[in-house]
Amino acid sequence: MPHYLENVIHPRTIAVIGASKNPEKRGYRAIKSLQADRYQGRIFPINPRETEILGLPCYPNVGAVPEPVDLALVCTAAATTPGVIEECGRAGVRGAVLLAGGFSEASEAGRLLEEETVAVARRYGVRLIGPNTNGMFSARLGCNALGNLDLPRGQLSILSNSANVMSSLQTEIIFHGHGGIAVMLSVGNQADILFHEYLDLLGTDDETRAVMFYVEGFKDAPAFLKTLREVSLRKPVAMYVAGRNAAGKSAAKSHSGSLAGDYAISQGVLRQAGAVVVARSDELFPVAEALSLLPPMAGRRVAIVSEGGGPITVASEACADRGLELATLSQATQDRIHAIVPAATAIANPVDAGGGTDPRVEYYESIAEAILQDPNIDALLLVGLFGAYGIRYGEQAGRDELRVCESLARMMQAYGKPIVVQSHFANLKPPALAALREAGVPYQRGMETAVQCLAAAADYGEARRRLALPPPAPRPAPPEARAIVEAARKAGRDLLETEARALLEAHGVALDPYRLIAGAAGAAAAQQAFGDAPVAVKVVSADIVHKSDAGAVVLNAVGADGVAQAVARIEASIARRAPQAAVQGYLVAPMAPRGTELLIGVLQDPAYGKVITFGLGGVFVEIIRDVSFRALPIGPADAREMVNGIRYASMLDGARGNPPVRRDDIVELLVKVSEIAMAHPEIAEIDLNPIIAHAGGCSVVDARVILQAAS
Amino acid sequence: MPHYLENVIHPRTIAVIGASKNPEKRGYRAIKSLQADRYQGRIFPINPRETEILGLPCYPNVGAVPEPVDLALVCTAAATTPGVIEECGRAGVRGAVLLAGGFSEASEAGRLLEEETVAVARRYGVRLIGPNTNGMFSARLGCNALGNLDLPRGQLSILSNSANVMSSLQTEIIFHGHGGIAVMLSVGNQADILFHEYLDLLGTDDETRAVMFYVEGFKDAPAFLKTLREVSLRKPVAMYVAGRNAAGKSAAKSHSGSLAGDYAISQGVLRQAGAVVVARSDELFPVAEALSLLPPMAGRRVAIVSEGGGPITVASEACADRGLELATLSQATQDRIHAIVPAATAIANPVDAGGGTDPRVEYYESIAEAILQDPNIDALLLVGLFGAYGIRYGEQAGRDELRVCESLARMMQAYGKPIVVQSHFANLKPPALAALREAGVPYQRGMETAVQCLAAAADYGEARRRLALPPPAPRPAPPEARAIVEAARKAGRDLLETEARALLEAHGVALDPYRLIAGAAGAAAAQQAFGDAPVAVKVVSADIVHKSDAGAVVLNAVGADGVAQAVARIEASIARRAPQAAVQGYLVAPMAPRGTELLIGVLQDPAYGKVITFGLGGVFVEIIRDVSFRALPIGPADAREMVNGIRYASMLDGARGNPPVRRDDIVELLVKVSEIAMAHPEIAEIDLNPIIAHAGGCSVVDARVILQAAS
Repeated sequence: MPHYLENVIHPRTIAVIGASKNPEKRGYRAIKSLQADRYQGRIFPINPRETEILGLPCYPNVGAVPEPVDLALVCTAAATTPGVIEECGRAGVRGAVLLAGGFSEASEAGRLLEEETVAVARRYGVRLIGPNTNGMFSARLGCNALGNLDLPRGQLSILSNSANVMSSLQTEIIFHGHGGIAVMLSVGNQADILFHEYLDLLGTDDETRAVMFYVEGFKDAPAFLKTLREVSLRKPVAMYVAGRNAAGKSAAKSHSGSLAGDYAISQGVLRQAGAVVVARSDELFPVAEALSLLPPMAGRRVAIVSEGGGPITVASEACADRGLELATLSQATQDRIHAIVPAATAIANPVDAGGGTDPRVEYYESIAEAILQDPNIDALLLVGLFGAYGIRYGEQAGRDELRVCESLARMMQAYGKPIVVQSHFANLKPPALAALREAGVPYQRGMETAVQCLAAAADYGEARRRLALPPPAPRPAPPEARAIVEAARKAGRDLLETEARALLEAHGVALDPYRLIAGAAGAAAAQQAFGDAPVAVKVVSADIVHKSDAGAVVLNAVGADGVAQAVARIEASIARRAPQAAVQGYLVAPMAPRGTELLIGVLQDPAYGKVITFGLGGVFVEIIRDVSFRALPIGPADAREMVNGIRYASMLDGARGNPPVRRDDIVELLVKVSEIAMAHPEIAEIDLNPIIAHAGGCSVVDARVILQAAS
Repeated sequence: MPHYLENVIHPRTIAVIGASKNPEKRGYRAIKSLQADRYQGRIFPINPRETEILGLPCYPNVGAVPEPVDLALVCTAAATTPGVIEECGRAGVRGAVLLAGGFSEASEAGRLLEEETVAVARRYGVRLIGPNTNGMFSARLGCNALGNLDLPRGQLSILSNSANVMSSLQTEIIFHGHGGIAVMLSVGNQADILFHEYLDLLGTDDETRAVMFYVEGFKDAPAFLKTLREVSLRKPVAMYVAGRNAAGKSAAKSHSGSLAGDYAISQGVLRQAGAVVVARSDELFPVAEALSLLPPMAGRRVAIVSEGGGPITVASEACADRGLELATLSQATQDRIHAIVPAATAIANPVDAGGGTDPRVEYYESIAEAILQDPNIDALLLVGLFGAYGIRYGEQAGRDELRVCESLARMMQAYGKPIVVQSHFANLKPPALAALREAGVPYQRGMETAVQCLAAAADYGEARRRLALPPPAPRPAPPEARAIVEAARKAGRDLLETEARALLEAHGVALDPYRLIAGAAGAAAAQQAFGDAPVAVKVVSADIVHKSDAGAVVLNAVGADGVAQAVARIEASIARRAPQAAVQGYLVAPMAPRGTELLIGVLQDPAYGKVITFGLGGVFVEIIRDVSFRALPIGPADAREMVNGIRYASMLDGARGNPPVRRDDIVELLVKVSEIAMAHPEIAEIDLNPIIAHAGGCSVVDARVILQAAS
């Protein structure tokens, strides 16, 4: 069964509403560009005052067209749109491209007009592209509703929040002369069809081998994540997501009125769903193109080959910056390479085949084969002069080079390991590189870009393996957990810390022992439980949210006397600062041993919904914001990527005299927290902060659970 | 007076040693490429077995050449080199290019051969380029001793540690078709002429407007810094410095000392000396080219102009990432822009001139003028479609666009503010952009690259203003300070903490009060001094370097009893862990108030010599390594850049409940520490760590001074 947007994106019949004989008018240029780009469907100009336009019979209205119309290209002014769509709806038109601006992006009146238009479209089931779009191009039938002619056709699809950025990607593709376009579309105001629906179609589109996105904001981010997960399993999706910093965010807001959440959240949840998120706009095309060609990369271990040391140095640094590892080649591989180039300057990896002998491009072929057969290596990067041996060393070298190029492409497929070529000569377009690309191996001019392509292949490989795992199974809440949440909800309050702890325990989270005492009178019981170990004493009160600020926490109290004094101090402090607070008691718990401070939380993102976070505590979260995010639910593989994905993950290996953090414990706890948040839709936020990871395990020192506000 | 390398780099006469009639030989190709590139001097082939080569009379040896020879191009094998140089020396040749490999880069025998060659050269005053270089190109007389023909000639000079990277820069220049080469040279093994000598020449070279460097290592880094400081005042120097991920740690006694060999040191001291250090190899050419064209930038405030929002969003994010500020345009400027483009989507900055009206390239001219006249703005960035108006909107738009391009170049000079254009169409080379560049305004394809060019202009502007300040005046050490250092030096030990403190005080650094007591008996005196304020007690002993590890520090002791107990604990600990240690006494000082932990240090870098460092303490130095470096001596402007240049400088504004750090105090302390280190050449390392910046000022909590090991 064809996709529900199939006929809209690949229309076999197009009605041009507002068709015109005036070459200045959009209604003329639209027909002209369809004809000029050899559109293979049928075009029906609509204009009550004409009988023929550009050689085509003209119809007074779309209802008069003698066959079913797949797509209406609406070239009339914004104000006419509701009426036009009404007419389209009556005529059974499947979709419409609204080229005009002047809708929600422009004014309140425009917003109302957009609402009205959508209401009409919904009534008839007409799907809308735009408004405020500069159109669409789809290669299959040559449907060029964009106006830019001679777009190279190929296997990349582009979805963009900005017509201007789309045009930038387009000139890039034209310049490079490869990696042409399957579908290209600026989504405009997304009044009706949303990003994820286009993506869903492209997921089913055989011509599309990779999708490029420029995104300023989603109107339905959770739906997008769902579609992205499905599509990423089949084909790579590369994205530039605006909103990385306040400057971009405010520029984006004024541009399309879209809401951008925390960029780190976007990045985390989009990567989780399989996207390759690039931080530089100029990496979007190279990365997407490379991903469309490369086999999935099994790990992050790269080998570098060059004749000459400088490019190797730069490549090695770029690899390290992007988390790619230069694994040492096996002894057998090194022996093979030594036999090929006995004078080589280096052979263990990187391989510098230079070293006094004459350059011979065929070395690349035999060295590449030795490396690709090495189980220590996941991908190969050739850097430097490759591509120019023919130019520099004559015709025979040129012929050899062409053969090596074809051989590299064959080997890449045979061994299932990515090959990327960085060539100083790329922009000069030597024939060898054209042949290389034609055979399926990507090449780049810039070293950092080439390395970024491999890093993207590694990231995408990891994501695909993870997405192929069975999704985390929902675990129903045990009745005692449900009862805790229900009681708090009925009382119109969040969970007390004792309840939050009980909830965690009901879900199987092991916590350090603690005691609830009613007041100073309970100090003896506390001593009975904990002896003379130093303890923390804190108030339990639904009315006191920020316990430390209220002076309601005392640390390092010792023995019954110490606890009693602590309770008295807290009582005095509350009497001063929160005299109205109802106190449910005092929680007494042994001080956690010294260790690494961590936090786990659940929060509600305005765009992506419930999100789980992990990070290091203290300055790492407050100043550095070294935290990772994933959308709920998560499985162990997600959790492990979260833990390993923080910037200063090295802190977990035991810095500053602390023992190493047992990452498995944290992974397990993250998955549990995800289960808890999923099992109780009433929960809005969870905050386990700090968690102290010490030699004996993990201690959750403070636990808060916030419920959704009653609506 | 001409520079001493003038005749070597711009030779008027060249002897080709090992000239040959065999087209396969280097000695043939060298002459051929000089002739082909229209060398304007005279060529003398040297070969005892020939009388004529390539139409030139051949000489049996260089001594037989009938006129003075500026440069010998040595095309013979490595082993012949000492003899060849001997002959050159006798003949009065000024310089020689040693093309052969097989010297110190290859083997121990090669290293000896190189040494021998240099010794001969020194004897006669022959200066050597290489060995192991692929040659040199200088445009003035068309001296192409490289073999790559048709190099575009222009105003950029290239110095490279790698022939291969040089070749990469060269193809880049050829592709872009602008920004040609003045001098290009791969330094090879730097057996004789070092980087700084070439740079010194280029500093005096009128043809060179900017210098590009690819550096893997200096043989005389301090000399390079000195030359760089001088040259940077006159022309920009852009560098890619390898070693970003190298470990290269030296054995050092102090915490600061352990930072030696860091890439961050290279970066800090090279920037201090005026270099623009790029982190991506693909930014080297664009940045150098832009710097060769742009007027100095007075601040970091950029305005962005576009028609269309997407590129503005990307540009804004790229600016924020690189510390460029989108300052709000003055109301007057906004009014002017509004009058030009009433329907503009945004006008405060960024300016989005789009908004429903037809695109008109002349808007860029009038908007640019309004912006350049605004005192709030230091530079202008045009992004998006500029350069393609002619292509997209017809001939009249094309003519207008050409005029706007010339006008932009005129305005850039008139207002003395940099203009950079990012154009999606750059790689398609539209005529407008060629005209723009011809008129002196740089353009780029990539947004991030364009923004990097402006950031580089801002950095270079700052550096130039700083370098123009008078250098810090040396302050002689006061006699009492000299006496302290001398006493320790004679005793063959480092300074005791009490001596380090006395040294700081002798140089005018204000420290918190402290007392030295001989032992527990001195506890009463300590109480007399500090009352019941909690104090730190630590051992003073030349034999105990790591006091905390030896259990020789007790914090928060209170009163005479507390101090006595602390001394007893330390004595017990030393008795166990360092029983041989001679104890000079115990230092008692009040605990510093809560505040922000900082460190200042001086260390000995193996390449750059004495370096000063500043950073945040705790995890910020241990894990994040958030420290900045400068070579000694520093003045207040350097110190301020150090303080503002750490990554998490926001911590200094008072994070985590701490008061803001008074940056002036830190600047003053840094300058003092620089003066101390300069005044006492015997000092190897200084470590003031931690320094606590609190509401009352700065407390130096621990001070260590390490002397140079007796040689």
